Amino acid sequence: MNASRRIGIINVTGYAGVELARLLYQHPEVELTSVTGRSAAGQKLGTVFPHLASIDLTIEAELGEIDLAFSAMPHQESAKEVIPLLKRGIKVVDISADFRLKDAAEYAAWYGFAHPAPHLLEQAVFGLPELYRSQIASAQLVANPGCYPTGAILALAPAVKAGLIEPDIIIDSKSGISGAGRTLSLSSHYSEANEDVTAYALDGHRHLPEITQELKRLRPQPPPSITFVPHLIPMTRGILTTAYATLSPGKVARGDRGQEALMKLYRDFYRDKPFVRVMATSPHTKHTWGNNLCLIHPTIDRSGEKLIVISAIDNLVKGAAGQAIQNMNLMLGLPETMGLQALAVYP
Amino acid sequence: MNASRRIGIINVTGYAGVELARLLYQHPEVELTSVTGRSAAGQKLGTVFPHLASIDLTIEAELGEIDLAFSAMPHQESAKEVIPLLKRGIKVVDISADFRLKDAAEYAAWYGFAHPAPHLLEQAVFGLPELYRSQIASAQLVANPGCYPTGAILALAPAVKAGLIEPDIIIDSKSGISGAGRTLSLSSHYSEANEDVTAYALDGHRHLPEITQELKRLRPQPPPSITFVPHLIPMTRGILTTAYATLSPGKVARGDRGQEALMKLYRDFYRDKPFVRVMATSPHTKHTWGNNLCLIHPTIDRSGEKLIVISAIDNLVKGAAGQAIQNMNLMLGLPETMGLQALAVYP
Amino acid sequence: MNASRRIGIINVTGYAGVELARLLYQHPEVELTSVTGRSAAGQKLGTVFPHLASIDLTIEAELGEIDLAFSAMPHQESAKEVIPLLKRGIKVVDISADFRLKDAAEYAAWYGFAHPAPHLLEQAVFGLPELYRSQIASAQLVANPGCYPTGAILALAPAVKAGLIEPDIIIDSKSGISGAGRTLSLSSHYSEANEDVTAYALDGHRHLPEITQELKRLRPQPPPSITFVPHLIPMTRGILTTAYATLSPGKVARGDRGQEALMKLYRDFYRDKPFVRVMATSPHTKHTWGNNLCLIHPTIDRSGEKLIVISAIDNLVKGAAGQAIQNMNLMLGLPETMGLQALAVYP
Amino acid sequence: MNASRRIGIINVTGYAGVELARLLYQHPEVELTSVTGRSAAGQKLGTVFPHLASIDLTIEAELGEIDLAFSAMPHQESAKEVIPLLKRGIKVVDISADFRLKDAAEYAAWYGFAHPAPHLLEQAVFGLPELYRSQIASAQLVANPGCYPTGAILALAPAVKAGLIEPDIIIDSKSGISGAGRTLSLSSHYSEANEDVTAYALDGHRHLPEITQELKRLRPQPPPSITFVPHLIPMTRGILTTAYATLSPGKVARGDRGQEALMKLYRDFYRDKPFVRVMATSPHTKHTWGNNLCLIHPTIDRSGEKLIVISAIDNLVKGAAGQAIQNMNLMLGLPETMGLQALAVYP
Repeated sequence: MNASRRIGIINVTGYAGVELARLLYQHPEVELTSVTGRSAAGQKLGTVFPHLASIDLTIEAELGEIDLAFSAMPHQESAKEVIPLLKRGIKVVDISADFRLKDAAEYAAWYGFAHPAPHLLEQAVFGLPELYRSQIASAQLVANPGCYPTGAILALAPAVKAGLIEPDIIIDSKSGISGAGRTLSLSSHYSEANEDVTAYALDGHRHLPEITQELKRLRPQPPPSITFVPHLIPMTRGILTTAYATLSPGKVARGDRGQEALMKLYRDFYRDKPFVRVMATSPHTKHTWGNNLCLIHPTIDRSGEKLIVISAIDNLVKGAAGQAIQNMNLMLGLPETMGLQALAVYP
Repeated sequence: MNASRRIGIINVTGYAGVELARLLYQHPEVELTSVTGRSAAGQKLGTVFPHLASIDLTIEAELGEIDLAFSAMPHQESAKEVIPLLKRGIKVVDISADFRLKDAAEYAAWYGFAHPAPHLLEQAVFGLPELYRSQIASAQLVANPGCYPTGAILALAPAVKAGLIEPDIIIDSKSGISGAGRTLSLSSHYSEANEDVTAYALDGHRHLPEITQELKRLRPQPPPSITFVPHLIPMTRGILTTAYATLSPGKVARGDRGQEALMKLYRDFYRDKPFVRVMATSPHTKHTWGNNLCLIHPTIDRSGEKLIVISAIDNLVKGAAGQAIQNMNLMLGLPETMGLQALAVYP
Repeated sequence: MNASRRIGIINVTGYAGVELARLLYQHPEVELTSVTGRSAAGQKLGTVFPHLASIDLTIEAELGEIDLAFSAMPHQESAKEVIPLLKRGIKVVDISADFRLKDAAEYAAWYGFAHPAPHLLEQAVFGLPELYRSQIASAQLVANPGCYPTGAILALAPAVKAGLIEPDIIIDSKSGISGAGRTLSLSSHYSEANEDVTAYALDGHRHLPEITQELKRLRPQPPPSITFVPHLIPMTRGILTTAYATLSPGKVARGDRGQEALMKLYRDFYRDKPFVRVMATSPHTKHTWGNNLCLIHPTIDRSGEKLIVISAIDNLVKGAAGQAIQNMNLMLGLPETMGLQALAVYP
Repeated sequence: MNASRRIGIINVTGYAGVELARLLYQHPEVELTSVTGRSAAGQKLGTVFPHLASIDLTIEAELGEIDLAFSAMPHQESAKEVIPLLKRGIKVVDISADFRLKDAAEYAAWYGFAHPAPHLLEQAVFGLPELYRSQIASAQLVANPGCYPTGAILALAPAVKAGLIEPDIIIDSKSGISGAGRTLSLSSHYSEANEDVTAYALDGHRHLPEITQELKRLRPQPPPSITFVPHLIPMTRGILTTAYATLSPGKVARGDRGQEALMKLYRDFYRDKPFVRVMATSPHTKHTWGNNLCLIHPTIDRSGEKLIVISAIDNLVKGAAGQAIQNMNLMLGLPETMGLQALAVYP
C-alpha cells in the first residue's frame, strides 16, 4: 500500500458515505483507513452496516491521518470540516454543495448561509470529469456535483456546447428515494413513498443554480434559461432525466440524417469518457444499478423541432460516491476507472 | 332495479374491464348483468378474479341483453364489437381508442388500420365530462379518453382555453405499470419493471393525437404543438403528468398576484366539476388510488415565465373505468358522482 | 342521521385512525363528527390527509360530544383516554392493545406497564366478531384485536376448536410496512424497507400473548404452545400468515377425503361469517387490499401429517379499522357488513 | 490468460445466465469466451442486456471451445446439453436440477421425466461448497443447488448434524420474484406481483427432495421430515428462510448459555467458510444484494423449546450464479472467493 493513499470519509453514516466505503473496498490502490460519523462514533462500521462487515474499521468522531478525504457532511457543515483539512494540505473531494457554485452570493440565495470561504470557490474544481478532467487532476479541492446536475449536465452538454438548441430548456427528473438520504422524513417513509409519485421543489430546487452555472460555462451567450422539476418515484436508486429544448433553426437536418448527426455529435463529445455511454435506445436506470455509468440517449421528436435527451444514472454512484472516486482517481494520478469497473447489478 | 339499467362489459378480463366490474358493484342504480372475455369464457368471474367473488356472474363469449355496454377490447377489435351494438340501439362507452379521434386518417397514421365506420367518429362524443358533459348526456356512443390524455388535457385545458400560454407545450407523464395492461410483456415483467424507470414511445405515442385534438378544440389558433413523453415507473396505479409551457406575454402578473390569478382561473374552470380538485400544493398519485379524482396543481416557475401544471390520477379509475362510469351516469340521467364516491385508499 | 350515531376518533393521524375516517365516510348510518390528534390539532383533516378532503372536519385536541369513540392511541396512552369515556357511558372500540388481554399481569410482562384498570379487562370483549359476535353486540368496551392475531386466530380457530391438531403451533407471518405505523423509524424508511425482507421480534412479539389467549379459550386443554415469528416485507398493506401444526392422529383421513373434510370443517365454522372466505386455493393479500375480508386456505401437506393454513388480510382493514367498524356495527345494532362492502382494489 | 480457463455459459439469456456473465466479467483468472441462447442467437450480448455491453460477445446457438461450462438451461433440457460436454472431458457446473438428486426415481416423481443418465447422478457432486468442498475440487460435474435448498440447508446443517433437533422441521421461505425467472408468467407480471404476497406449491415444491436428501446425508437417523412452503414477495432479489424445529431434550441449555452454545456450534461449523456469516441479529436480504454471502442467525425461541434459524441470501448469487462460480473456483484450483468479493449493494 502506497503511504500517500490513505483515505478518509467524513460522515460515513449517510447513503453517500456508506456507498463510498463499499466502492473503496473494491479499489486496488487506495485504502480506507478512517471514517467518522458523530451519531455512531465508537461503533464498528460492520455493526451499523452489516454489508460492510468485511471492512475492519471503527467509526470515529475525528478523522485520523489521511492523504485524501471525502466529505459526505450536509451543506454548510461540510465546509467547516473541509477548510481545516485543506490548510493541512490534504486533498478533498466534497460531496456536499459547499464548493460547487462559483458565486458566493448564490449560497445566501439558495442555501441561506453566508459562505465561510468565498476565495475557495474559485479554487475548487467542479468535479464532473467529463468536463474538467485535467483541472481535477491537479486540484486540491474538488466539489462533487449534485446527483440531478450530473444527469442533467451530461445529457445537455454536447447540445449546449454545439449551440444546437435554443436557451430555453426543460429538465424533468425522476429520482429514487435514496436521493433524499438516510435521515428520516415523512416523504421517505415507506408507506408514503411506495406506490406514489410526486413533483417537488416547484419553487426552485437547489440543484438549479448548479445546472445553470455549468451549462452557461459551456455556452455563455445567450445564457440558458432552465426550468427544472424533480420528482420522487418509488424505487431506491436511480435518476432518469428527460431534457427538452427547441432545436435552433438550421442546425440539425430532418429525419434520419439529423438523428445520425446528433448521435455523432454526442459520441464525439463523449469519446474517451469511459463512464458515459451514448445509446441508440431509451435507457433504463436499472442498467446502471450500483455502477458508475451515465447512459444517454439523444433524439429528435416526431415534429423534428425538439431535442429530447434522456439520461440514466445511479444517483448514489455516478450521482455521488462513484463520481467522487472517479475524481479521487484523477487527483491521485490513478487510472480514471480504477475500482469502478463492476457491472450494474441486473435485474 | 330499473329494467333499463342492465350493464354489460365486453372483455372483462383486462385491467380496465375488471376495474369496471369492481366499481359497478358499488353502484346503487345499475346492475352488471353480463360480462364477456374470450380466453376465460365459461369461468365464474370470481374464479378468475377472487376479489370479485361477490359478483355472481359467469364470463360469456357474447353479451346477453343489456341496455348499456362498456367495451374494454383492444383498439380495432373494439369497433367490431361496438358497431353492431349501436345498430341495436344500445348505448356504448368505448374504453378503446376506436372512436376518440375525429379524423379517420389518424387511425391509419397512428394505429395502422382503416377505420371501419368513419361516420361514427363525428357522432361519438369524447368522454371527458369536464369538457363535454351535456353532449355526453345525450350521446349514444361515448369514446372514453385515454389515461394519459385525461391527465394531460385536464391539466392544460384552463390555460389553453384562456390563451395563457404559447402553443409549444411539453408534457412529461409518469405512469404505473398497470397502464400497460394485463397482457404479458417483458416491460411489465416484475424483475424488469421493478426498481426501474424509463421513457418510451419517443417516436410518438398514440395518445399524442388525442391530446392535440382536444387542446386544439379548446383554442384552434394558433394550433398547439405538443411534445409528449410517457415514462414507466415502478408502481401499479397512477399517472402523474407534468406539463410545461411558456406564459404568453402580459397574461399573468409576476409573483403572488399571478399565482392567485392562475389558481382562480383553474378553480373557476373546474367549478361544479366534482372530480377535479385544484390544489395549492403538488399532488401525489397516492391520494387518488382507487378513486376517480384528478388532482391539479398549476403554478408559475421561479423565473416567472413558465407555467407548470401537475396532475395526478389513478390511471384505471379517472384514466379508464371510473371515467367510463361517470360517462355512463350522465348518459343514463343519473347523478354524475353516483357509485364513485369512495375515497382513495391511503396509504 | 340518528342522534345516537355521532362517532369520534381519538388520534386520527396514525394509519389506523386515518383508515377509520376513510371507511366511516362510506358508512350510511353513522356520522364522523369529531377527530383528535395532538400534533395536528387545529388543522383541517383534508389538509393533513388530502384523500380525506371530502370530510369537513378540523382535528381537535379533545373529542366533542359523541356516542361511540374509536381510540387509535398507542398502548398505555389509549387506556388513559378510554377510561373517562367509559365513565361517561360512551361506547368505545379500542384499537390499541390496552384491553385485549384478560390477565393484567401480561401488561407488565409484555408492555412494561401496570394496567390502570384491571377490572375492565374482564368486562372488555375481544373484538373478533367471528368468535364473539353476541358479546360484542352488548358490550360497552370492545378491544379490537391486533393485526397479526386477527389473521392467525382466524386461520387456526376451526382446527384448534375441533381438536384437529397437536398443541405445538408455528405461525409465520409476513406483513406490509404500514403495520409499523406512521411514526418515522429506520425500519420503515423507504430505502431500508424496499427490496428487503427480515424477521423481527424473535425474542417474542407482543401479539403472541393475544394469540395464545384466544386459541386457549377455544381449547383449554392441552394448552397451545405457539411459536410466532413476524416478518416485514416490502409492500404497504397486507398480512399473509402461514400456520403449521401436526395433525392429531386419527382426526383427518389421508388424501382427498381428508382435504374435503378439512374444507367442510372450515366452511361450517365460518358459515354466516360474512368477512371470512374459505378458499380452495392459496390466497393473495392483493385480493383483500382496502377490504375487510379474511381469506383462508386450509390444507394438508404432502406427507399427510401437517396442517398448513394460510390466511390473508389487509392489516389496516380487517387487521384494524375495518374490524373496528364491524364491531361498531354490532354494538350499534346495525348490519354487520354495513359500510364495509366495497370490494378490494385490484390490481 | 491461462488457456485452460475459457468459460462458456449455456442459455445466457435467463436471469441465472446473465448473472453468471456479470460475475465472470469481474473474475481475474477466467475468461468468458462463449455464450449460447437459442432465442437470441446472433445478437450481441450487450444489445440484449445493456448492462453487459462491456462484454464483447455474440450469443451463439452452440458453445465454442471451452474448458468449463455452466449450464443455465431448464431442467430436462440441461442434461441433454451437459452429457455430451462431459463425454468431451469438459468440466460442467449445472445450474439446473438435473444432477442434484441421487435417486433417479425422484426425477420421475418430482420432475416428470425419466433421467437420461442415472449413472451420472452418483458421480455428480452436490455443489454446496460449505458441505462438499473437497469433492467439488475434484469433480468433473457439479450440480449447483437450488436457491431455496441453499438457504435452507445452510440454515439447518449445523443443528441437524449435531443432532440438536427433532426430525420434524418446518421451512418457511420468502423469495423475490426473480427466482421465477425471466420467462413471462402472470405470477411474475408486475401488477400482479407488486403489493402482494402469496404461498405457493403447497402440494410440494421440487426443491423439497433436494433439501431432504441433503439433511438426511448429514444425519441419516432418524430421517428428517420436512415441511417446506415457499412464498413470493414483492422484491426482485433475495430469499429469507425461517426454519423451525423442536430442540431435542437435554441438548441445549436454557437462557443465554444455550444461545451462546448455539452460536458457537454454528460458528465452529462455518469456520473457514468464507461465504457464510453467522450473525447475532436477524439478517436482512438487503445486506446480500448482488453478493455471494449467506447470513445466518440461529436462535432459541422464548419458550426455550424451539430452534429458529433465519438465513438470507441473494437468490441469483449464492442461490445460483455466485455459488456456481464458487464451485468453478474450486474445480479449477483457484481461491474459493476469487471474483466474488464485491460487497452487497446497499441500500
